[in-house]
Amino acid sequence: MSGRKRIWNRVRPVFAVSIACAASSAAHAQSMRDVEAIAKERGLTTQDLVAAAKTYTPSGQHDDYVMFASGGHAGQVFAVGLPSMRLLRSIAVFTPESWQGWGFGVGNEILEAGFPKGKPNLWGDAHHPALSETNGDYDGQFLFINDKINARVAVIDLRDWETKQIVKNPLTVSDHGGTFVTPNTDYIIEGGQYSVPFGSEYAPISQYKEKYRGSVTLWKFDRKKGRIDKSKSFALELPPYWQDLADAGKLVSDGYMFLNSLNTEMATGGIEEKNPPFEAGASRNATDFLHIINWKKAVKVYEAGKAEMIEGFPVITLKTSIDEGLIYLTPEPRSPHGVDVTPKGDFMVVSGKLDPHVTVYSFDKIKKAIASGSYSGKDDFGLPILDFDSVVEAQVEVGLGPLHTQFGPDGYAYTSLFLDSAIARWTLGGSYGSSTPEPDWTLVQKTPVHYNVGHISAAEGDTVSPDGKYLVSLNKWSVDRFLTTGPLLPQNLQLLDISHQGTNMPVIYDMPMGVGEPHYAQIIKADKLNPWKIYPEVGWDTVEQNIDPMAPKSKMERVQRNDDGTVDVYMTAIRSHFNPEHVKVKQGDHVRWHITNIERAFDATHGFAVPVYNITASLEAGETETIEFDADIPGTFPFYCSEFCSALHLEMMGYLLVEPE
Amino acid sequence: MSGRKRIWNRVRPVFAVSIACAASSAAHAQSMRDVEAIAKERGLTTQDLVAAAKTYTPSGQHDDYVMFASGGHAGQVFAVGLPSMRLLRSIAVFTPESWQGWGFGVGNEILEAGFPKGKPNLWGDAHHPALSETNGDYDGQFLFINDKINARVAVIDLRDWETKQIVKNPLTVSDHGGTFVTPNTDYIIEGGQYSVPFGSEYAPISQYKEKYRGSVTLWKFDRKKGRIDKSKSFALELPPYWQDLADAGKLVSDGYMFLNSLNTEMATGGIEEKNPPFEAGASRNATDFLHIINWKKAVKVYEAGKAEMIEGFPVITLKTSIDEGLIYLTPEPRSPHGVDVTPKGDFMVVSGKLDPHVTVYSFDKIKKAIASGSYSGKDDFGLPILDFDSVVEAQVEVGLGPLHTQFGPDGYAYTSLFLDSAIARWTLGGSYGSSTPEPDWTLVQKTPVHYNVGHISAAEGDTVSPDGKYLVSLNKWSVDRFLTTGPLLPQNLQLLDISHQGTNMPVIYDMPMGVGEPHYAQIIKADKLNPWKIYPEVGWDTVEQNIDPMAPKSKMERVQRNDDGTVDVYMTAIRSHFNPEHVKVKQGDHVRWHITNIERAFDATHGFAVPVYNITASLEAGETETIEFDADIPGTFPFYCSEFCSALHLEMMGYLLVEPE
Repeated sequence: MSGRKRIWNRVRPVFAVSIACAASSAAHAQSMRDVEAIAKERGLTTQDLVAAAKTYTPSGQHDDYVMFASGGHAGQVFAVGLPSMRLLRSIAVFTPESWQGWGFGVGNEILEAGFPKGKPNLWGDAHHPALSETNGDYDGQFLFINDKINARVAVIDLRDWETKQIVKNPLTVSDHGGTFVTPNTDYIIEGGQYSVPFGSEYAPISQYKEKYRGSVTLWKFDRKKGRIDKSKSFALELPPYWQDLADAGKLVSDGYMFLNSLNTEMATGGIEEKNPPFEAGASRNATDFLHIINWKKAVKVYEAGKAEMIEGFPVITLKTSIDEGLIYLTPEPRSPHGVDVTPKGDFMVVSGKLDPHVTVYSFDKIKKAIASGSYSGKDDFGLPILDFDSVVEAQVEVGLGPLHTQFGPDGYAYTSLFLDSAIARWTLGGSYGSSTPEPDWTLVQKTPVHYNVGHISAAEGDTVSPDGKYLVSLNKWSVDRFLTTGPLLPQNLQLLDISHQGTNMPVIYDMPMGVGEPHYAQIIKADKLNPWKIYPEVGWDTVEQNIDPMAPKSKMERVQRNDDGTVDVYMTAIRSHFNPEHVKVKQGDHVRWHITNIERAFDATHGFAVPVYNITASLEAGETETIEFDADIPGTFPFYCSEFCSALHLEMMGYLLVEPE
Repeated sequence: MSGRKRIWNRVRPVFAVSIACAASSAAHAQSMRDVEAIAKERGLTTQDLVAAAKTYTPSGQHDDYVMFASGGHAGQVFAVGLPSMRLLRSIAVFTPESWQGWGFGVGNEILEAGFPKGKPNLWGDAHHPALSETNGDYDGQFLFINDKINARVAVIDLRDWETKQIVKNPLTVSDHGGTFVTPNTDYIIEGGQYSVPFGSEYAPISQYKEKYRGSVTLWKFDRKKGRIDKSKSFALELPPYWQDLADAGKLVSDGYMFLNSLNTEMATGGIEEKNPPFEAGASRNATDFLHIINWKKAVKVYEAGKAEMIEGFPVITLKTSIDEGLIYLTPEPRSPHGVDVTPKGDFMVVSGKLDPHVTVYSFDKIKKAIASGSYSGKDDFGLPILDFDSVVEAQVEVGLGPLHTQFGPDGYAYTSLFLDSAIARWTLGGSYGSSTPEPDWTLVQKTPVHYNVGHISAAEGDTVSPDGKYLVSLNKWSVDRFLTTGPLLPQNLQLLDISHQGTNMPVIYDMPMGVGEPHYAQIIKADKLNPWKIYPEVGWDTVEQNIDPMAPKSKMERVQRNDDGTVDVYMTAIRSHFNPEHVKVKQGDHVRWHITNIERAFDATHGFAVPVYNITASLEAGETETIEFDADIPGTFPFYCSEFCSALHLEMMGYLLVEPE
């Protein structure tokens, strides 16, 4: 072997391919000829074959990374494997989803806890997923996500990939700067978006400056319980700018958070009254404001009892923030969208979408400017404004419509360019600069994407130790990229190979996303996830993540009529029958139907479906659920297992018989 | 060029690869070396590279086929491109879906028309999609699909890929043998599944044989209107067997339809009362019954006024069917699942899932047996039973748990084997036999799949002219194929290359399906589809597929308070503003909010989202929608465009101000 290897090395410069081909087995050579022939027939270039080799993932081979992408107004989270770019699973969050039974008897109390103003709201606009972190690295335990349309935050447990909690923000009805976590997931940050009077109470738009307010909420996370602890959470009042994205400081900037904003013009629109429309009025000024907030200090202020109760929730008012020195502003170029903290926590990168530069702030300079106490002025609400020049480290011209920035492990930053439809790779400076061949703070490459990229996401890209390798461009328009699917087209999630230095940064896969509109995504190394394959024990309560003492057990199945006129059904499910198979109730009965999937095999899911009564559940091995309904319609209703579980799956059914009054 | 080509040809047998490599450009050679190096690093075999070359579809290159797969209890339809196996789009059908706005103000009247017993039912168990056909070939115009849980049928218009109609079956509450179309889409067939008293009325299970009934419904399709015409539809009463899958005859068997059945034992379960569970009771007999129904004759009987009105719907009773000679039975081996008619219409292939054979019936023999009038007996309901031996052409041993059969263009049939987890390729006989190298009616190959395959779908596989090339195995369990996504795993849709004869039939792609559980799919050549890119004119009513005369127009936007206390909002949407931007109403107002997307650009979709009021819409270019609600909660509600439409998308918003009473 070593002899042959030497020969290879010697002749490689001239005849490498020929020799390599000849040295391979006949079968291998035939296969490679097949590859080229098939490629030719299908119109693939050799570059396409390179991309195919980088992304094709054969049966049974697992992906290296999982991308958790928000579903946008689909209201869900979508998990995508990288590099295959295959959609592994949706996770139902804000919108009922019948395949998972979410909202059709299962999870109803979690959804109901999030109803705004007590009104049933059965969808969400999921925007920014955030993986839980330990010391600034994803730890694979939890996933959080915000709902922009009603200002809510959801908690997903990554042991079973199910939503466990939805909290409604009591102050605002619209959020955007969230979710983002502090480096040890002590708090989940939820910044508002469109300002409203607190509690979304009514006030005429003419009272905008007086009564409308922005906010940022710090939801305390109880990692042990896996729940947001509302009793230890609080908010900060902010001016009625439209706070946009946010990021938490890390390492040197741990304890701070950064929110940008737009519409510091406080435009109130009204095109129909000959006012400038929002798109013009909110874009008038040359700069908006980056909010620099000392959240650790804010926690102390809150704990010292200096917050006011507003809408039943503790709020640190603007006056208190000013008195305590919690919030500083600094100008940022026009209508910023993203603010992203570099891996070491030392720089904050802001993109003003109407400015072709990214603006890089130095945390060191920010600290010094705050310490100096010399501000260039105050905003209309009395917040101190740090002088732009005193805190900026660099501005890099990257292209048109810069939005969001992600980071690699090697001194590169990546910024999405909406108007250019491109991803810019540029170099950081400071201590990062040493690892790139190019000069500091310089544009290196722009790779075209298709089309209108919003967020981008790099592998472990929001952590203190980004992986590089892959970057996903979440493009908003796909136009001609795929077959036309009627007037409504999928988004296009493009995978870029960022493993090489310099200008080599090709698109290697186009993934249509036709089940929602992902806004943002985080990408975690797959081996950090350690999900359950089956529930730990039979009779598992998936809300409490513990055994349900009331769970139906084998040999104790029954239909039990109670003294109060209610009926409890205790049912088990196993391939391939339910027990009991006949459930007889009377019209008007209130029925509590408890089911346990008593299987212990991986993937042995049973569905449970009842007609007319709008009931569907997905019961994974060990899971127990209770579904309640009023048997108000008499009749004969065949229920059945809705998840194809065995050769005798069709026989896994029974009859609900509701006898008329 | 031709000189070079000759040299290639001459040396190919010995040095083909070497010469091919040398003849290629240096860049090409380098790329092919890259391909091999990357493959090695990623653990891909050369066979994997062959599969990658067959399936990888570069940016902007379109798929050759579209597979429309049911979403199972997700209630939707999913469109998948072949050979890339990318999920192009979901189409909302039975379950509200907020990304498309379906059921959140848009499509509500279509969903409501399908509510069973008038009770809101907000999900479906979508099973068998059927593409519309002309002369037995898919024509790309419509797609139909059934909802098993409530016995409903939906109509999707493939001009805009939207659901236009949902009809509720008035007789049964559970369907399975549908949807299937007659060769010119005159009728859409919907066979029942679990027997119930007609109308799903109450009757004790002890009265099963007397009061419970099966059925098959023929929904008349009005192609011009794109709607099922309920007034010209009718059903046939069937015995209370569980009718299962169905297929329409074609060419020589046009005018007939075939339904198989299980539980001809009429077992009624009751494991809790020490009865055999359904899985045992319904599997006792060695044979069940294939139903052979002359639907063209049934139409004449219906048109002659010989149907009875039951539950307000015309039903040809069993007695009439017997008197008129509409229905014949013949035995089929144990617990059949699929019945599939061969491309020429001459054979019916049935798989008894507890029998290792497929059983092939000859239509010619069936016709002769019917004509002879000599039956081997009658069933309990008086239906004549054709002698098994007199109608069977062949039985082929294919393996364990055969379920469904599809066809190629070349004399091959393909049968899914649930228990073997494999796809069997076997040869047809008769006039098909001449095109295969193997003997007639013989098993050729079994390719393992992963795992528990249910349906399979071949390219144009249900037509009179199947394409071959690709076959998708819709596997129910994925187990270890992908990263573990918690206890709930995706299904696995595996693509098989069936373009070669003989035993060469490899799996070339594994697609996780983690957004639903597809039961069946049909695969159409992409160039047969001709969807709209934008709606034909601005102000398009997508239900009527015509201009809405009331659609808001540019420069006529307004908020109009009517004398009856209702409010009409006439709004337009265009990048990047709504007009009007302030909508002021009073608490208690009934609001009709009309919006037109006045864009004319491809992919220029706008979303429309209102907090608290549970409203979301997706408005494609030209579309107009009307959303109604009662403004019962006072407050300040920012509405916005939820589909990222432009760099100033965040600024595309406005305020709904609901003044308190």
